Amino acid sequence: MIEVINTSKEMSRVSDNIKKSGKNISFVPTMGALHRGHLSLISKAKKSGDAVIVSIFVNPTQFGPKEDFAKYPRNLKKDLALLKPFAPLIVFAPSAKNIYPNDFGTFVDVEDLSCKLCGEFRPGHFKGVATVVLKLFNIVKPDFAFFGKKDYQQQLLIKKMAKDLNLNIKIVTCPTIREKDGLALSSRNAYLSPVERKSASLIYKALKTAKKMAKSKNAEKIISFIKRFLAASPLIKVEYASIVKKANGAAQILIAVKIGSTRLIDNILI
Amino acid sequence: MIEVINTSKEMSRVSDNIKKSGKNISFVPTMGALHRGHLSLISKAKKSGDAVIVSIFVNPTQFGPKEDFAKYPRNLKKDLALLKPFAPLIVFAPSAKNIYPNDFGTFVDVEDLSCKLCGEFRPGHFKGVATVVLKLFNIVKPDFAFFGKKDYQQQLLIKKMAKDLNLNIKIVTCPTIREKDGLALSSRNAYLSPVERKSASLIYKALKTAKKMAKSKNAEKIISFIKRFLAASPLIKVEYASIVKKANGAAQILIAVKIGSTRLIDNILI
Repeated sequence: MIEVINTSKEMSRVSDNIKKSGKNISFVPTMGALHRGHLSLISKAKKSGDAVIVSIFVNPTQFGPKEDFAKYPRNLKKDLALLKPFAPLIVFAPSAKNIYPNDFGTFVDVEDLSCKLCGEFRPGHFKGVATVVLKLFNIVKPDFAFFGKKDYQQQLLIKKMAKDLNLNIKIVTCPTIREKDGLALSSRNAYLSPVERKSASLIYKALKTAKKMAKSKNAEKIISFIKRFLAASPLIKVEYASIVKKANGAAQILIAVKIGSTRLIDNILI
Repeated sequence: MIEVINTSKEMSRVSDNIKKSGKNISFVPTMGALHRGHLSLISKAKKSGDAVIVSIFVNPTQFGPKEDFAKYPRNLKKDLALLKPFAPLIVFAPSAKNIYPNDFGTFVDVEDLSCKLCGEFRPGHFKGVATVVLKLFNIVKPDFAFFGKKDYQQQLLIKKMAKDLNLNIKIVTCPTIREKDGLALSSRNAYLSPVERKSASLIYKALKTAKKMAKSKNAEKIISFIKRFLAASPLIKVEYASIVKKANGAAQILIAVKIGSTRLIDNILI
């Protein structure tokens, strides 16, 4: 059975009961418009044997005033049909009013991470993400929470927030799921016209080639290669291409582009 | 027995065990330098029959660069002696490094409340308060948390944060405890010289007289009376005197003054 819950109060009560019964909760927060990327997270969550809660909430505070909040795809009926094979499952689908009452005014900021990369192009975005995820965590009370690696900076931010705010939640990051031509699955791919869709496949091709180059070339050469490679399509406007070093010595190449008015991101480990 | 715990990890583990045993947790966050005001909160917390946890932590992020963080009184041994009559009790006394590791960088801001009144004179103060209280809540996992009414804006802020971030914690506000001459108990009273201490008693006298005036006079007259009344002492510098209306139709007069370099606050219901 798929149980749909619409208010924070009821969700919180149901979560309390699950915890009291001694079960763990695995949580997959989404904005709906579910695709195979989301389903892979839910599939992973289900494997634990925990109670699984999926939230569907298009979070207004993470969209800029000129961004696609209004047109972001919403289709709960279709989403629920896609979730059916995962029953039993709890879906938390609150209204914006329920999450942000009129007098709402408390925000969380992961200061170091919220202004870089995507944060530079989407001011306020990560403050909105951190705030809603913390609220959802407090309502759903998960032991595990699942995020996709496609939103690389987002999962870094959530991990940092969980550590900094002493949340006792294990953040699990799952691999990016791709179309046959390599394009990372995203609810925003639906915005692309056929010709835009075709050029979008260049993003992952650029990343794969850059990964091969990484054995012999330095960061500067790799970045300038990516920019030249993507310039091959007049439809693609690169917001940034960047290499982020990790604590373990590895690095990640991150790309954000605009194709028409559609913003797409992707990344690869090198 | 008084059990003293020094790390977040151990505190979190102990709290988890208390919750698993089916007990509630009542929490009294303090900065130490305990006085009868703190003890009244602990006494109230003990009455519930819950496990009681008292934190002692002088929180660096709520002090401005020119404020009294360095000189703030710290005497754990004396504090523990004062707590002895409340045994069994758990004292959480972490180091600053344990609460704020080097790479720490996530802050909580209750935007509407953090810039007014005290926030105007102590920029960043309430961001530090909200952040540390949220961290302590996440570590200690209380069902009830106790705050004094002397810090009126602080308890409003914590209640707002708890509501906005969906914390399932009941915030209990307790009456201000006073010296015989009416001065509200504060760890900072220890900074006052005998002559400053004497003039400090004017603060509550001003509030009490203002409360009587409130039946017949308007807000403007009351505020100007308070300012004139306190101007009687050349040692007192008023930061603000303000009347805040409440949802239930009542109101609160709030005062903040500097006496020498010591900042004191007080308030009264009208």
